[in-house]
Amino acid sequence: MSATLTDAHQHDLAFAEEDRHGLYKTLFNRRDVRSQFKPDPVPDEVLARVLYAAHHAPSVGFMQPWNFTLVNDDAVKRQVYGLYQQANEAAANEFEDERQQQYRQLKLAGILDAPLNICITCDRERAGPIVLGRQQMPEMDLFSSVCAVQNLWLAARAEGLGVGWVSIMDPNELKQVLGIPAAIVPIAYLCVGYVDHFLATPELANKGWRQRLPLGDLVYTNQWGAGAEADLLQTLEQQAEFPYQF
Amino acid sequence: MSATLTDAHQHDLAFAEEDRHGLYKTLFNRRDVRSQFKPDPVPDEVLARVLYAAHHAPSVGFMQPWNFTLVNDDAVKRQVYGLYQQANEAAANEFEDERQQQYRQLKLAGILDAPLNICITCDRERAGPIVLGRQQMPEMDLFSSVCAVQNLWLAARAEGLGVGWVSIMDPNELKQVLGIPAAIVPIAYLCVGYVDHFLATPELANKGWRQRLPLGDLVYTNQWGAGAEADLLQTLEQQAEFPYQF
Repeated sequence: MSATLTDAHQHDLAFAEEDRHGLYKTLFNRRDVRSQFKPDPVPDEVLARVLYAAHHAPSVGFMQPWNFTLVNDDAVKRQVYGLYQQANEAAANEFEDERQQQYRQLKLAGILDAPLNICITCDRERAGPIVLGRQQMPEMDLFSSVCAVQNLWLAARAEGLGVGWVSIMDPNELKQVLGIPAAIVPIAYLCVGYVDHFLATPELANKGWRQRLPLGDLVYTNQWGAGAEADLLQTLEQQAEFPYQF
Repeated sequence: MSATLTDAHQHDLAFAEEDRHGLYKTLFNRRDVRSQFKPDPVPDEVLARVLYAAHHAPSVGFMQPWNFTLVNDDAVKRQVYGLYQQANEAAANEFEDERQQQYRQLKLAGILDAPLNICITCDRERAGPIVLGRQQMPEMDLFSSVCAVQNLWLAARAEGLGVGWVSIMDPNELKQVLGIPAAIVPIAYLCVGYVDHFLATPELANKGWRQRLPLGDLVYTNQWGAGAEADLLQTLEQQAEFPYQF
């Protein structure tokens, strides 16, 4: 069924070069920030734009299952930081020898440095028990909330706000600290704030933990494992120095 | 630990208005497209940009667990379409009365119309058994792959390409059709192609299935369920007609 005559259309199909530039500049310059936070508060009008960006993520059955719990109370942040410290110590011990030493030298969260933390959660019951598009893939509502995280992250980068996603904590303990009901799922705990600088390349690559993989190796054709077609592979290799790097 | 002196920095902190405009224009005009696909092929240089956008998503422990299986073979598409038809019939029957009639009038996938389909998968073993940041939240690698979906979707919109995420199929049957190994998780099956037009508002809202929620209701402060602060709430309400709508 095509769109009805009463559906309003967008004016632009492919965007002009300057609009694509703004998007790609953001996509390629977004970083996971742990260390460069400044204490300056985030103005409400900037925070509102970033939250609207998140709220315009795609969601299964237009479910919009997300909530945004803004954490700016130092006592709450300190409790969350305690969860992180405990989990990070346990996590470090799972690595061996040099890798453990390397792990222990990484700063992996800016919970106390960032003026604002945001916990994005997923309410799996928001649209009732049967959700369009979720019947065969029940995890689709969680995935929708992740799309909201990514939209928020991109808007934040363009606004000059660093964002770090802290996954090193027990989600059930986080639920206790933030009073999150049993049926609600924490998706992301984010540290948000203005920064001294953004790194040019991902911090885990800078610090020798792990490097970016060649994209051509990750593309298949019609069957999983069947490599990319030769022409596309060549184009990918030519664009490995992508024009939108800054 | 702060960044070392040898780490290169980005030049721009907050982006200029024109760059933010390009990002927000994309974020607010992205749609889930099911009906408006044209048969024109996607040029390799455009596809490469869209894939690079996906490949620059955040990933837990810089794991980059994604693969992109490009499906352009009609026989493979027809098999996938068969899975969709079967699942969609079962899905429709779960709704009752008027809601079922309404469901059956929606076109929910453009598998055969779109010249290109892309299956994004997650390789949970890509970085070995212990992954930095995944120890307390084992689903973080799945979530990273979802961020790649969202980056791809945004880049596609700016390039004039419609994307529709088809979640109405049995993922295990999809694995059979695409030869996906047991250990690999399908995250998203996407229909991709140029379009006649993009709708101004989400199709499920247009068609009366479900409406956008007021953002102010979804924002809490320090504890889940504790509403947004009054000033922020007022700003959110003032920006409900967001300046970056097109």
